Parts: sequence; structure tokens; C-alpha cells
Amino acid sequence: MSWIEDPAFTADEPFGPQTLPYGVLPGGIAVRVGDQALLLRGLALGERLGPLVATGTLDALLAAGRPAWSELRARLVEIVSAASAPRGAELAGLDGAVLPFTVADYVDFYSSRHHAENVGRIFRPDGEALLPNWTHLPIGYHGRAGTVVVSGTPVVRPHGQRRTSAGPVFEPTRRLDIEAEVGFVCGGPVASRLTPSQAVDHVFGVALVNDWSARDVQAWEYQPLGPFLGKSFATSVSAWITPLEAFAVARVSPPPLGNDVLPYLVEERPWGLDVDLEVEWNGVVVSRPPFREMSWTFAQQLAHLSANGATVRPGDLIASGTVSGPARDERGSFLELSWGGKEPVVVGGDERTFLEDGDTVRITATAPGESGSVVGLAEVVGTVSPADER
Amino acid sequence: MSWIEDPAFTADEPFGPQTLPYGVLPGGIAVRVGDQALLLRGLALGERLGPLVATGTLDALLAAGRPAWSELRARLVEIVSAASAPRGAELAGLDGAVLPFTVADYVDFYSSRHHAENVGRIFRPDGEALLPNWTHLPIGYHGRAGTVVVSGTPVVRPHGQRRTSAGPVFEPTRRLDIEAEVGFVCGGPVASRLTPSQAVDHVFGVALVNDWSARDVQAWEYQPLGPFLGKSFATSVSAWITPLEAFAVARVSPPPLGNDVLPYLVEERPWGLDVDLEVEWNGVVVSRPPFREMSWTFAQQLAHLSANGATVRPGDLIASGTVSGPARDERGSFLELSWGGKEPVVVGGDERTFLEDGDTVRITATAPGESGSVVGLAEVVGTVSPADER
Repeated sequence: MSWIEDPAFTADEPFGPQTLPYGVLPGGIAVRVGDQALLLRGLALGERLGPLVATGTLDALLAAGRPAWSELRARLVEIVSAASAPRGAELAGLDGAVLPFTVADYVDFYSSRHHAENVGRIFRPDGEALLPNWTHLPIGYHGRAGTVVVSGTPVVRPHGQRRTSAGPVFEPTRRLDIEAEVGFVCGGPVASRLTPSQAVDHVFGVALVNDWSARDVQAWEYQPLGPFLGKSFATSVSAWITPLEAFAVARVSPPPLGNDVLPYLVEERPWGLDVDLEVEWNGVVVSRPPFREMSWTFAQQLAHLSANGATVRPGDLIASGTVSGPARDERGSFLELSWGGKEPVVVGGDERTFLEDGDTVRITATAPGESGSVVGLAEVVGTVSPADER
Repeated sequence: MSWIEDPAFTADEPFGPQTLPYGVLPGGIAVRVGDQALLLRGLALGERLGPLVATGTLDALLAAGRPAWSELRARLVEIVSAASAPRGAELAGLDGAVLPFTVADYVDFYSSRHHAENVGRIFRPDGEALLPNWTHLPIGYHGRAGTVVVSGTPVVRPHGQRRTSAGPVFEPTRRLDIEAEVGFVCGGPVASRLTPSQAVDHVFGVALVNDWSARDVQAWEYQPLGPFLGKSFATSVSAWITPLEAFAVARVSPPPLGNDVLPYLVEERPWGLDVDLEVEWNGVVVSRPPFREMSWTFAQQLAHLSANGATVRPGDLIASGTVSGPARDERGSFLELSWGGKEPVVVGGDERTFLEDGDTVRITATAPGESGSVVGLAEVVGTVSPADER
């Protein structure tokens, strides 16, 4: 029996000893243990590991790279599994978690075929659902690193330009939406031209991402240079980053693309992940997007991103793109769930299309862990605040 | 007579006392004075200003905001105008200048109507040259902050996917191009929802930008989410940032858009700038793009960028988009100059379309200053290295 007495700290629960995600609390860097957290500052972690977790962000740990990550995780597994509390062990509540790392560049991919086809059908009803490049490369774009926020941060309804028959107007968005995604937090030495297998060692851990989107703003602005203000007002990420090492059992092959990929994108053993997401809208589960349906893996995304010589830096955040499965209740955005607002969703008795002020969206996820355990991704939650009327 | 004896340190020269751009040399923060630089570390600048320039980057100075910027500039004008060298004054050569600030988010706009129309005609010959949103908002997208490099950094020809009749291939780009742009370096307190006049106080200074582009990669990847790997391999900026205050005389009204703009984008007195760029290809001047032809000003760009609640942070870099004028020899990219490769440019006796290995591109610019002086923007230069064949 572990010295940590917490009914949620078992292998059957998402934040048992098989998960140990990292976050930053007012008391410093911590790993989540059930419904509480173990602060790392007081533990005797040695000369090499101790300084990496002595600060108020994960930045130094991200930069340290895979050998340090593995060593620290092994040490923490020992510590949380011990029968008695080690010297310096200090538990804390989960409140007050902050964005745990400095976001360097934020890239958002578009790797669900179901999502890309749905959006294509909704936005370009007379064109091809899927553009010809989609099955040959992981389509993506840069987002705004400066507006990545931690789970729990209120999302103020953004203003933006929207097209009307009388010309464009500047108003609070009427089509505020979510995008349920999985994010990968990068670390290790600055590197470029990574193979997919090299890329894996540049991923520290995994989080959930909600890439909030203003669809009316996006529809008017996005040609020809892509999404800009329709996305850049807020991107929420989990407060706790689950180490990639926790996902060894969850590896799966992604669905076939239908064509060969170029050699620089070939994975010897693919890094698809069997992660089940769940989207709650005001407490009602409205969707269960299956991450195993994603066509491009994070290893391929990083190989592509760095193929032109672009560097991958510690703190880079890459998000998968909206996770949507083939079924209606597997769609990861309300644009898709309500089919462009035409087919309302029933939420607690109300018919709804896009987000209203006061709405709360909570995304959670789990994956299979070793020996039948459950690996958790920490929730990403946000509540919509009314537009700023100044 | 100033104590600084340098034939290039006069009001007739771009880097005379009217300019005083900031950079970072091996000896620390400096201002350029003609063909040399004055190191700031040894000067008696007082308790408030001294610490802002005691480090190896402009980051603290950028964060300090307009009052500190104005005070420091006034003090430096006094120092460089004095008859004898003040205590602690130390001159240095210009070699070894590094990227002078940490780039937070990098946004690239698209604010030249001539460029947007030219690219529209080349990429979409059967469509409208200018999309309907263009005259209503400053179109832009996020670029990769991590691959912004200082002038002089070699540009390795990037690999990328290119479409062929036999399907896509992954090879070094065959259509390596430049984009001659003007960049604005942001600072001051973190802020959002700025009016154009508020936005001006969040701009520390002005630099030249070369947004290197791989046109074949871009053409295949950019639908529907915009440019990604065709741009993210390298973006070069001047080593010296000219303070915005040096451009008071250069303010002009931009050309009319042909329609009203929404109130959040209206400027009481516009911040167009009368800057003349010059593009040298292997030492031959091939273009003189006129920045006064840009339709959207940096103040409007920042007002738009932050209108949805997105924050402007110190270190944010916004670039104007390619500067192109109406005449052929005013175009700011080789895509336009060679009309998609169909109309070669004569460079030193050779017919050329896109960049070859070993080519050097140098962009310089000047603006009118007070009392007939000339304000300079420091060169942005780069030489193409062969593709990395590993």
C-alpha cells in the first residue's frame, strides 16, 4: 500500500500511480496523485534532477530531455509506491494550478479525416469534401502562443468581423465553438529534420486542448491565409501534462490513408493512440471523440513540421486538430455536431447549436495503461463570459 | 561637432544621430552610430534606465514601455551630440550582432494591395484577383517565432512537398523566393483590444524583414489553413531596430481602400510611412518597393490583431506583408517580379526567376527624417546555402 491515502490514487482511476502527470501549483512543480498532488520541491531528488523541478515552471524539465524525464519518472514511481512517506514529501490540493510551461510556438494540425470532411462539406458544399493534399501531408498552421491559457480560465466571448448581406459588422461572435483536441508538449534539445522515431524523443507529455473558435469570424477571414482572429482569442490546455511514457500500451495503428506516404513520414511502428475523449456541455455528455481515428500521428506531425529545417524547441505545443469519429456523437466540435447550426443538439432539455454566455465545456480523456490500468488526461474546462462591451 | 568621429554619422546618412537604432553586440546592447556602435553598458544612465540596457537582449527595454523608450532616446541623443566623450563611452564594430530580442508571437500581414492582387492573379488565374474581405480587414496569419533569425544568417534551401503530375515528391524547393517587408517590434504592458492610437504606444521600433518563401511548397500545402512549411524555415530581421520615434516626419496617409472601414479600424491621423525599400539580388538593384503604397497601417494591424481579446506582448513581431508598388520594378517578391517564373529578371547578365544556391539578397530602406535628414532601417541580408542532403 502506498503512503498516499487517496481513493482516487489507484490503478483503476485515471490519476493513479500509472499516470503521474506534471503540473505547477502555488507550491511549485507537482505530480498529480488522485485528487491531490505531491509537491516535488522538498523531495531528495539528487543533484541532477532536483534543480529541474525547483522552479515555478516545467521549462527546465522540458529542456532536459528524455533521459532526465525517464529517470525522474522512475524515481517518482518509487516515491509514490513506498509504504511510508519519504522525507520532505508534501501533499497539496489541486486548486491554483497555473499554465505549467512557457509556450514557444503553438501549431494546430487538422489530422481527423472525419473532421476535415465534415468541415469541407459545411464550408464548401459545392467542392470536394477533402482537398487533394490532405492524405499526403499533415495539414497544420501556426496559432497564437500568447493566448494559450490553463484549464479553468474563463473564455470571454470575442468580438470580430462577420459578414452580413449589408456588409461586414464588428460584433461579439454568434458562433462560438469548441474544438476537442489532444496536445503534445515538446522538449529536449533544439532539433530539426527529425524522423518520426526521433520526433518521439522530443515529446515530453500529452494534454487536452480546447481550441475555442468563432466560426462566423473564421468564415469571413480565412481566405487565403487561414484562421487568424477566429482562433487567437483563447486556446485552453490541461493543467496537468501526462508523460508520454504512460502511453506505451495505448499505441495503435492509425486508419489507412488510402495512399502511400513519402518516406520522411513513414513510421516503423505507428504512434496512433487509443485515447477516448468525452465532451460535456453544461454537464451533459454530448460527444465521445475517438483519438484512435486520427489519420496522422504526433510523430509524423513533428517530422513534417521540422522537415524544412524548422526547429522544434522546448515548450512547443502541437495540437492534433479536432478529434472527430465517424458517428454523430463522436464529433469534436459543435459546428459538426449541429451541422453548421442546422441540426440543434439537445442539452439538458434545450435545443442548442453554438455556445451561449455562461455555458461550460469540459473535456476529459482516458487511455489503456499497463496491467489493465487507466491512464488519464487531465480535464480542460472553460466557461463562457459575456463579451467585453467597452 | 559630436565626439563620435565617423563619416557615416551625419544627418545626411541613414545612421546619423536622427536614427540611433538599437541592437545587441557581443559587448551588449548598443545603438548604431554610422558604421560603428556605441555600447550602452558603461554609460551613466541612472537607476531607472541603466538596468534596462545592462543585459544581453532588448527584452527588458521592450517591456518598459513608451515613457522609458522616450527618456532613453532623449538621453542618448544628448550623449552622441556632446562635444567630448562622456565617461564610460565605448565604441565597437558592427560585427557579431545577434537577434536583439526574444520573439514572442510572429504575425505576418498581407497589406499591399498590389502584392495581394499579383499573387491572386498568379495563384488563382480564373478567380477574383482580390478576395472580398481584403478591403475590410488587414488579412494576416501567425508565422513561426522559433525560426526568426538575425540578418546575415545563411538560409538553407528547405526541403518540402511539391506536387508533380506523378504525385507529390519531397525534395529541396525549386522556387525559393523572398518577401521584402517592414516589421514592427512590440513592447509595453501586455494589452488587448487596442484602438489604433493606443496601439502606437505598443510599438518600440521598426526593422526590415525578409520572409523567405518556398513557392512550390506553399502552393501545394496552403489550402485550406494557409502557409505553413513554405514559410517556417527562416524569417530574417534586421540586427538594428530603429525607434518608432524616428519616423515622426515620415507619416503619410495610405492609399484609399475604396470603402469605409469599421470604427475599430479608423485612425484619426493615419500611420502610413513614407519608407523606400531597395532590393539587391547579388548586388544588382532589382526592385524599389514603396512602403507608402501599403493599404493598412501597423496601428490598424495591431488594433485588428487584438480586437478579439488577443494580447499584444513585448517581443511580438508584426510584419507588413510583402511591399509591392504598382510598377514592375517595385515588386517585393521574385514570384511577382518574374510573374510566377514566366518572365525572367536580368541579374548581372543572367536571366533569373527564383533563387539559386549562393545567391545573396540584401534589403535596405530609408525614410525622411526631421530637418531634411535621412532615417535608416538596417539591412536584412541573407545568402542561400545548398539543401541539407542528409
